[in-house]
Amino acid sequence: MSSYLITGASRGLGLSLTKLLAERPVEKVRFIAATARTKTPGLAELTEKYPGRVAFIPLEVTKEESIKAAVTEVEKALGPNQGLDVLVNNAGIASLTPGGVSEMQDLMSTLDVNVNGPQRVTTAFLPLLRKGSRKLVVNVSSTVGSLTLAKYIAMLPTPAYKISKTALNMLTLQWAFQYEKEGFTFMAISPGYLKTDLGGKDAHLPVEVGSKAVLDILDMATKEQNGKFLDIHLPDFPSEGGVKLYQGGEIPW
Amino acid sequence: MSSYLITGASRGLGLSLTKLLAERPVEKVRFIAATARTKTPGLAELTEKYPGRVAFIPLEVTKEESIKAAVTEVEKALGPNQGLDVLVNNAGIASLTPGGVSEMQDLMSTLDVNVNGPQRVTTAFLPLLRKGSRKLVVNVSSTVGSLTLAKYIAMLPTPAYKISKTALNMLTLQWAFQYEKEGFTFMAISPGYLKTDLGGKDAHLPVEVGSKAVLDILDMATKEQNGKFLDIHLPDFPSEGGVKLYQGGEIPW
Repeated sequence: MSSYLITGASRGLGLSLTKLLAERPVEKVRFIAATARTKTPGLAELTEKYPGRVAFIPLEVTKEESIKAAVTEVEKALGPNQGLDVLVNNAGIASLTPGGVSEMQDLMSTLDVNVNGPQRVTTAFLPLLRKGSRKLVVNVSSTVGSLTLAKYIAMLPTPAYKISKTALNMLTLQWAFQYEKEGFTFMAISPGYLKTDLGGKDAHLPVEVGSKAVLDILDMATKEQNGKFLDIHLPDFPSEGGVKLYQGGEIPW
Repeated sequence: MSSYLITGASRGLGLSLTKLLAERPVEKVRFIAATARTKTPGLAELTEKYPGRVAFIPLEVTKEESIKAAVTEVEKALGPNQGLDVLVNNAGIASLTPGGVSEMQDLMSTLDVNVNGPQRVTTAFLPLLRKGSRKLVVNVSSTVGSLTLAKYIAMLPTPAYKISKTALNMLTLQWAFQYEKEGFTFMAISPGYLKTDLGGKDAHLPVEVGSKAVLDILDMATKEQNGKFLDIHLPDFPSEGGVKLYQGGEIPW
């Protein structure tokens, strides 16, 4: 009987997570606040198919006013004295900088969405999360934010995106350590390289494979995983250049 | 006969670095561009004592126009066809957030100075650095930006500062990998916890001890240290709670 809020639910990973959660029985998933800037046809399909359980709630993660309004709407939808169980900070942007880091012009705008977005949303929903039964906050990060692995991903021309995910990991830790005592679990997860608008069609995995693997992490999340940076677990994914990807467990910082 | 540019040279670590470099013989240190928003009395003292060798050059790391003007001035001061050998991105801000991360309001402004500042300055001075003999860029980071050590520094109420230094480390790597082939060395260093306006009077070390240790790193920097996150080396610093600080070498990400 859990309730979820997913940002960036209009497409890609966010939409797929919403769909998979909606397909579960109501005894498992009571309500999904599918938030996004706009209601795409894909999301409209879900709100029509699951009325009362999947609700589209407008939310722009860079705008305080928009977030405030979303809190009021979610509060109303959950019902009196009901908390929000799981928050998935999934909304994010990425752009290519083919000329490399010296040509990067979008650092601040990327940080505003990908780092300050989760900061604003988590802060605003904190009172509802405190009333929730799971107190689970998942920040959708990426392996490309790993400082340890950065050398091996140096050719990928997305410096602002990489830096934003590294910063998001540190933001996750700030929340994790501060709210551990209240029973919260904050984690950063890498959903894999997915064939979404953001990932492109050369990516490793269909979005449904990534979203299912992400839900596996959410389902099995424990308090011991507070402050961890977790990989999805796809034991059958073939090695690439001798490297085994998607082995689950922690990604090195 | 090296030339240096130091940002944030009006006080603290930047001013102390400028002073120590200026005290070296001219055969070792030809010119120091001491950049800052304002010329403090401490900096004025140095420009008067070392005319032609220490130059105050106004530079605000958040303002493109200001950086452009500084490039022109530094170019003029260095002389025709002369490059800049060493850039020290030292300017940075920090503020306390006693209520913790959910009260953090200064994330974007801190990122703008501490991460996008070095990004803008390095980009603008790249042509001069390419003509330099050392091609060394040092980003002044901090151990508090370490994800690995974050748990042990969780009580320090400076979430925006911590996140900015983690992001700065990833920015450093983006530059390091892209410009390695051109013979550049980019490094992030932690100058230690210094008794400056930023560090406060309860800090571990007098600023001169930190700046001397930082200069030791600069003097001995090798191309093999490209993309490293380095600690200062103070073998005699006493253990704190069984932990040996300032042992030199790499700080874990």
